Parts: sequence; structure tokens; C-alpha cells
Amino acid sequence: MMEKIKNGDYILLYFDNRRKWLINVDKNKKFHTHKGIVDLERIIGLSYGEFVESSLGYRFWILVPSVCNFLSAFERPTQIIYPKDAGLIILKLGIASGKRIIEAGTGSGSLTAIMAQLVKPNGHLYTYDINSRFLNFAKRNVRKTNAIDFVTFENLDAKEGFKESDVDAIMIDLADPWNIIPGAYNSLKGGSPLGSFSPTINQVEKTVLALRSNCFINTESIECLVREMHIEKGKSRPTSRMIAHTGYLTFANKIISD
Amino acid sequence: MMEKIKNGDYILLYFDNRRKWLINVDKNKKFHTHKGIVDLERIIGLSYGEFVESSLGYRFWILVPSVCNFLSAFERPTQIIYPKDAGLIILKLGIASGKRIIEAGTGSGSLTAIMAQLVKPNGHLYTYDINSRFLNFAKRNVRKTNAIDFVTFENLDAKEGFKESDVDAIMIDLADPWNIIPGAYNSLKGGSPLGSFSPTINQVEKTVLALRSNCFINTESIECLVREMHIEKGKSRPTSRMIAHTGYLTFANKIISD
Amino acid sequence: MMEKIKNGDYILLYFDNRRKWLINVDKNKKFHTHKGIVDLERIIGLSYGEFVESSLGYRFWILVPSVCNFLSAFERPTQIIYPKDAGLIILKLGIASGKRIIEAGTGSGSLTAIMAQLVKPNGHLYTYDINSRFLNFAKRNVRKTNAIDFVTFENLDAKEGFKESDVDAIMIDLADPWNIIPGAYNSLKGGSPLGSFSPTINQVEKTVLALRSNCFINTESIECLVREMHIEKGKSRPTSRMIAHTGYLTFANKIISD
Amino acid sequence: MMEKIKNGDYILLYFDNRRKWLINVDKNKKFHTHKGIVDLERIIGLSYGEFVESSLGYRFWILVPSVCNFLSAFERPTQIIYPKDAGLIILKLGIASGKRIIEAGTGSGSLTAIMAQLVKPNGHLYTYDINSRFLNFAKRNVRKTNAIDFVTFENLDAKEGFKESDVDAIMIDLADPWNIIPGAYNSLKGGSPLGSFSPTINQVEKTVLALRSNCFINTESIECLVREMHIEKGKSRPTSRMIAHTGYLTFANKIISD
Repeated sequence: MMEKIKNGDYILLYFDNRRKWLINVDKNKKFHTHKGIVDLERIIGLSYGEFVESSLGYRFWILVPSVCNFLSAFERPTQIIYPKDAGLIILKLGIASGKRIIEAGTGSGSLTAIMAQLVKPNGHLYTYDINSRFLNFAKRNVRKTNAIDFVTFENLDAKEGFKESDVDAIMIDLADPWNIIPGAYNSLKGGSPLGSFSPTINQVEKTVLALRSNCFINTESIECLVREMHIEKGKSRPTSRMIAHTGYLTFANKIISD
Repeated sequence: MMEKIKNGDYILLYFDNRRKWLINVDKNKKFHTHKGIVDLERIIGLSYGEFVESSLGYRFWILVPSVCNFLSAFERPTQIIYPKDAGLIILKLGIASGKRIIEAGTGSGSLTAIMAQLVKPNGHLYTYDINSRFLNFAKRNVRKTNAIDFVTFENLDAKEGFKESDVDAIMIDLADPWNIIPGAYNSLKGGSPLGSFSPTINQVEKTVLALRSNCFINTESIECLVREMHIEKGKSRPTSRMIAHTGYLTFANKIISD
Repeated sequence: MMEKIKNGDYILLYFDNRRKWLINVDKNKKFHTHKGIVDLERIIGLSYGEFVESSLGYRFWILVPSVCNFLSAFERPTQIIYPKDAGLIILKLGIASGKRIIEAGTGSGSLTAIMAQLVKPNGHLYTYDINSRFLNFAKRNVRKTNAIDFVTFENLDAKEGFKESDVDAIMIDLADPWNIIPGAYNSLKGGSPLGSFSPTINQVEKTVLALRSNCFINTESIECLVREMHIEKGKSRPTSRMIAHTGYLTFANKIISD
Repeated sequence: MMEKIKNGDYILLYFDNRRKWLINVDKNKKFHTHKGIVDLERIIGLSYGEFVESSLGYRFWILVPSVCNFLSAFERPTQIIYPKDAGLIILKLGIASGKRIIEAGTGSGSLTAIMAQLVKPNGHLYTYDINSRFLNFAKRNVRKTNAIDFVTFENLDAKEGFKESDVDAIMIDLADPWNIIPGAYNSLKGGSPLGSFSPTINQVEKTVLALRSNCFINTESIECLVREMHIEKGKSRPTSRMIAHTGYLTFANKIISD
């Protein structure tokens, strides 16, 4: 009844909280760690939740990787999106099964992978990047997550607008969102949401002003911070360091002008 | 080609950023505001993105409601989950189409609604609450989001364990997560994730210790903060007040003991 | 040996954490609360740490007020400074006994009071405000803290520069810090620090650029957040709401141009 | 009229925001940097705000060091206090000229140095540490700040109580504040404030409960976060990483029991 791990599957190989890796199980490969070598062939036929022993006799546990683990393992020619930001984007834009979504700025494909996972099996994601090198990275990354069939990659300049129309939501992750807004307006369903991610407050200001003067209302800009806790009996406290900033998220809805 | 609004549809009726309401369009009802009365019948046949005029001649815009708008409008006998927390739960637990998920502690059904939206059309959510009054509220709330067919509500004590087995993830939102962990272990697939939401750090400490001694590894506890920005040309800054705390999120993965 | 409370003294009258008041003990006054009337004459001759009973028999404790309690009780025609920000200003500007300090923008006098307390008995604070109404409020406020003899109030426009020269530090709390910088440069000792407080990021950007092009180096801009904890046996957690933003602090040091 | 730098003075030697050092000017020493050697003798006779050239012709600016710069340069056998926390301690405890203060837990002497600077010339700081090695470090550190004459170092166990009585405030920075509270009560003036710094929430809970059952009221526990901003024309944003946690601050006032 338990699902057995097959050649080609992805697992999270876990030694401890600081040493865990997303692994593509390849029967011809060995994985080298400070705690010995793990022969990946020996993982085939095991179940998730079981362990494999390294050459030095240490236990490495086989866990189901989350989308966050995939993201951490992505090749990244550009900054990847963090789960804290991606989670809010999903909920604010209503990314869910059956939705048709446009993404402007594929980058490393991290948000592409997350959104593609959620629109399947009946929806679709159209992602645009002018940089073909980024697109190639993104395709390799997204392929790992088993959602690539739900993504159309377009090597086009988002400033020129999009091929699709009446999509359910549009997400922009580019340096000049204000240049994308007119085209996004044309392709978006009436009343539907647009999102944008920008590192600097100057970009946010310029984006919000462009949205307001391009028939978008209900604008909202937020930032999200995550702090990890160190939990130990009688000694629990926040961890000492954290990511202080990734970017601001902006959301708005299209209205139909006269 | 544009979708026309029908009797019974949900819309976000928007006047400005502080005055917006989730509305169930009922041809026999009128909606009273400080800016005049909106005759809901007049909305039928319009498209999302268009506006309706109130009796005083003000424009109210008709937007597509996000799941966050539904949440804000939920009847809430208990604290509802915030989008910042729900977003992380979705990604860490891998909630997506086709997954089978258990939720311990239905409460107002806010997380129920969010997860149900994402597992459809091929997955299912099983939600447990010992309190039948909460379950009734939750059913009314979830029904609004069009995902109720993907939810089984169980008026049972989660401490007694769950009927399902081999589920893909389990989410606990109860005051004593440590009492749910043994039953959760039994119903969860090997290597798969469990999540828990708790307001106090004492609960988090007790939960993490219980997880560690009940064959869960990869424990992680975090808190998430969202701050809104006030964006105005040349005068942009964070808003003055914010939600300082909702609760801590804890995640871990099940391993198979010898 | 214990100090007895005299007519005219300031005390913090404490009922519980949400009901506490800075009180000027006046033998002819009564203080009305929801828990009865406190006859202030009965406080005279008591010691700090003792209590007085209200007309309804409730205990009100007499505590030594902190400068923070004074601030909370200030009349405020303008936004007051928060302790979190004032504390950093003191340390970054080296406010201490014997120092000569200029403040541009007296406002309600909250930062004036804090700095005056610290420069006495051998230093002095020169505070400038173009608005005479603010200055009158500030004088009344600062008088309460027993430090008014160490403050010179100037009803002048800080944009015109300052009368003093070779001061140890300058603090600006005005809407257009960049207009104050040239005059501040003239009055500040070489190598010494200037501070500025601004609510918007646009002001910060403009201030920092003006500092850099006006012979200031070592520029640093920060924001400070304080979150209160709710402490209860087994139920400790951050409080639910907090101040999300007051303003940004900017610091820099003057260098001597060729 | 300008103050000339003498042998033995402390300066902040500044190259850029990441390369700046607290330097004790010693006419026999040279300071080696990646941008060349700075002959410290050449600094003598210069004024603060001027520059000295390195052997490679780079300009190094001579700034007035803040107490924060001294702290960064302290030898630290134990964790030092951060300015964000020290600033709040000063204001909440009313540290100012003329006050008599007890510090339990000298540690590296960072808070000792800050408080000593502020109580002079008429006040005094009594600091206790059971660890004589820490005290020696602390003495060396505090000596640099010119405030050592206002400090009495006691190599005693704070759990045994303090020699002084009727002090204006007491600050505890030890792992077990609850054990210090009874002795602190005896030495503190009625109505006056006590402060405590603790890294873990468990310590905070235990401390607050001990305060409440030992005739302290007005308890308050807070945490303080500082985030730095990256300011650049048109590209301003928070920095990417920050200190997520140092410790919690707890304050309370002594009442006189019957």
C-alpha cells in the first residue's frame, strides 16, 4: 500500500535541520556527505519515511519534499521568490485549479513552479521572459516539480503585451512593473487581480501610481517578514538572524473604463 | 464573452480601500451604505470590473472577490486564520489539487475554505471539530466559496484519532496539539508533513517536544508578520499600526519507526 | 530616610497596567477614576512605593514616574517621539552630561525633555521652532521634568541657521531636513554627529543624499520596532497589536571640507 | 578653537561604511589596512573631521566615536548589549546625571559603560559580577570611555544581595534574574524601577512571575528590533539581513509591602 520510491523520484534526504538536500534518485549515483556516502540505488524500493544508511553507518531519512525544498534547490540566475511572499501571492491572486494565469518575468521559475502546481489539472500558466537564458534555467527547474505540462514559456518582452486574453490573474516580477501595466490591463478579466513584486520602495511608489492612473483600484502594498524560532525545553527564543527584506508585494484589481 | 453576474453570485463591492464588502447578489435585496443605497438587482447582468451607482449617485465597483475577502466576511465563533499564515501552511504542507488532507480543528472554517479550494477537483479535505456549533458556522462559511463538495466535516474529537489513513498532510489548529500528534502519526503517509498553529510560545515548545518524541523530524517553528505600506507620491511609508501576532506555525515530517 | 512626597511633586498613580496616570500632586485637587475618587492631599507625606485608597476602597500605588510616563502625559500639538527612537538618538548622538546640543524642531518638546535631562548639570540644549504655539506647549511640557533650566528655546526658523557654534551634536525633527543641513554643518563640531527623524522613506532618501553632498559621511538610516509581550504562566506570547511605524532615524558625521 | 587630537585620544577612523575602526591614537603605532598603512603619529595635532592619508594615498577620516563605536570595539567574553536595547533601558530606568544605579551582571561592561557615562558627574554605578575574569575585561573596556571613576566594580554574587541601599534603579543581566529579585528589592527605593534582560521567553516568564510575587508591579516585557535601510537615489529599501533577536527587556516598579 505504501508508495515505493522509484528511479527518478525526488526525495528530501535529511540528516539534521541544517543538512538536508533535495535529491533526484538516480540508481547510478552516489551522494557524498560529511557523514559518509549515500548509495542512491539503495533508496529505490524504500518508502518515504524510512532511512538509508551511509557508508559510515549514519541514518539519512527519506522525506517527501515540499515545494519549498524544490525552490531551495533551484538553479538561480535571478533572485528566487520566498515562500512567505509566494503564499500571499497565491491567496491574493486566487491561484487555484482551473485558473488561467499570466506571469511577467519568469526569472528562475520559482513562482512559476508554485503557481503551476496549483492550477493543474484544468488551468494553465503563461510565463514571459525576454531573457532566453533565464527561460532555460526556469524550464529545467520547473520540470523537476512535475508541473511543466501546465506552463507555456514565452521568450517575449512583457512590455509588448501578452498573447492571452481574459486571464484570471497576472503576476509581475520585473524591474519596471509600470511598463507592463498597460499590456496587463488588456489581457486581464474585468474586476480581476494583478500582483507585483519589487525590492525597492521607489518601484512600489511608481507601480502604485501607474496602477491608479491605468484603471486599477483596490491597490494594496505590503511586506512580509518571517522569523524562525529556536525551540528547546526551557530555552525557547527567536533565532538570532533573519532575512530582513526580500521585496514588497502590491495588489490591485482591474476596472473597466468608460 | 465577458461573464455576466447572476443572482446568487458573490462579488466584492468596492467604494474605497476602507469601504468594501463581500456581497451575495440577491435580486430582492438592497445594500445600505453611507454613500447611498445599492440596489443589488441592478448588478445582475453586469460584468466584473463595471460599476453600479448608489441612490446618491456614487460609483460602487464590482470586483472579483479573493479568498481573503471571503475570509474577512466569515462568521467567526473562533479566531480565523490570516492569509500570511495560510499562505505558508499551503506551501509547507504541499496543499494542491489531488491531495488528501486532514484538518484537526475546523473552527470558523477559514483554513478549511482555503485548503478545499486548492485540493479540488481530485483531492479531498477531512476536517474534524468536537464542537458542533463551530462546524455549523464552518459549513455556512465554506459553502460560500464553492468548495464545500470537497470537504467532509466530522463532528468528532481529534484526540481520538482520524478515520482516514495515508493522507498527504495534516494540519492542527487546536489548543493542545500534543494530544493530537499520536493519532495524526497513524493517519499520515510516511515522510509527509504535519503543521500546527498555536498562539503561545508555551504551546509551541510543548508541541515541538511532543513531535520530536513521536517520530517526527525536520521540525521548524516560525512566525510571520505582515506590514502594510501607505503609498502616496513623495510620502510613502509603512502604516502606523499592524497586527503584531496571530500565532506561531510549526511543521515537521513523519518518519517510520522500527 | 525615605523621601516624602510634597505638594507639587509628580507621581505615577497606578491602578493596573492599563490604568496609570502621571499626576501632579496638588493638595487642593481630587482625581476621579472608575474605581473611586483619590484625594491628592492624602498622598502628601507618603513615600514612593506606598499606596493611597480611593473613596471606594481601592488601592492606588504611588510610583516614581519614568521619562516615558512624562512623555505619555505631554500635551501634543505635534507627534511625540517614542522611547524606542529617543533611546537610539541618545546613544548615537552621545547625549550626556556636559554636552551642548542643538535641536531643530521643538514640536511638543518630548525629545527636548529627554535630552535636557541628560545634559544637565553642565551641558545645555538649544531648541529651535518657527512655530511659537508649539514652543509654548513645549515649555509647559518640559517644565514638568525639572530640566527646563538647561534648555534655551528659540522661536526662529532653523532654515536660517543657528546662533551657536561648535556644538557636540545636532538633532533635526522637521519635515524638510535637507534645508537645515547647511546651517547645521556650520554650527557642528568637526567629526561630530547629526541625527534626523522622518516618517516617510522619500524624506529619508532626500536627507541622505543632501548629507552626502554637504560634507557628511558615515550616513546610516534605521527603523526601530518595539513589540510588547503578554506574559502569563504557560500562556506567554506577543501582544496582538503594535505600533508598526513612527519614523526612520538617520545619522551622519560632519567632515571638514578643504 | 578647534580641539586638537592628542596622544592617547580615541577616534573613529573611517574609510567607508563597512570599514571603520575605533582607534586609540598612539604615536608609536601604525594601523594596517587593505588601503595602506596609517601612521597614527600623523593624526596627533589634527582636528576631528579632518583626514589622514594612508601610505597608498587613501583618505581616512577622523570622526568623534559614539558610545556605539566603543561598544563594537569592546573585548567581549560575554554577549554585549545592543544600542537598541540600551537606549530603552536608559529611558525606562531613568538613568541620568546624579542617579545611583546597581547593575547585576557586569559581563563585558557594555551596559556599564553606557550607564556610567550618563550618571556622571554626580551619580554612581555599582556593578556586580561573580566572575572575576569578566570584571577584568569590563574594567579595561569601561576605562576607554572615560567614565570609570563613576563605577564601583564588585566581584560578588548578586544572588547574595547588594551592599548599597536606596538606589534609584537596578538593572539585571544574568541568566537567573528571579534569584536576584529579593536582594534587588531590598536595595531599591520604593516606587523605583528594576530592569532585566533575558534571551529566552522562558526566562522572561519566570522573571515576571517572580516580580509579581515579590512586591513589584507595573511589569512590562518588550522586544526591540532594528532594521537598517539601504538608501540610494531611486533604489531605497531595507537591507537584506538583520539581527532577529538579542533578548527581551522586562521592567517593573517596587512597591512597599505592609
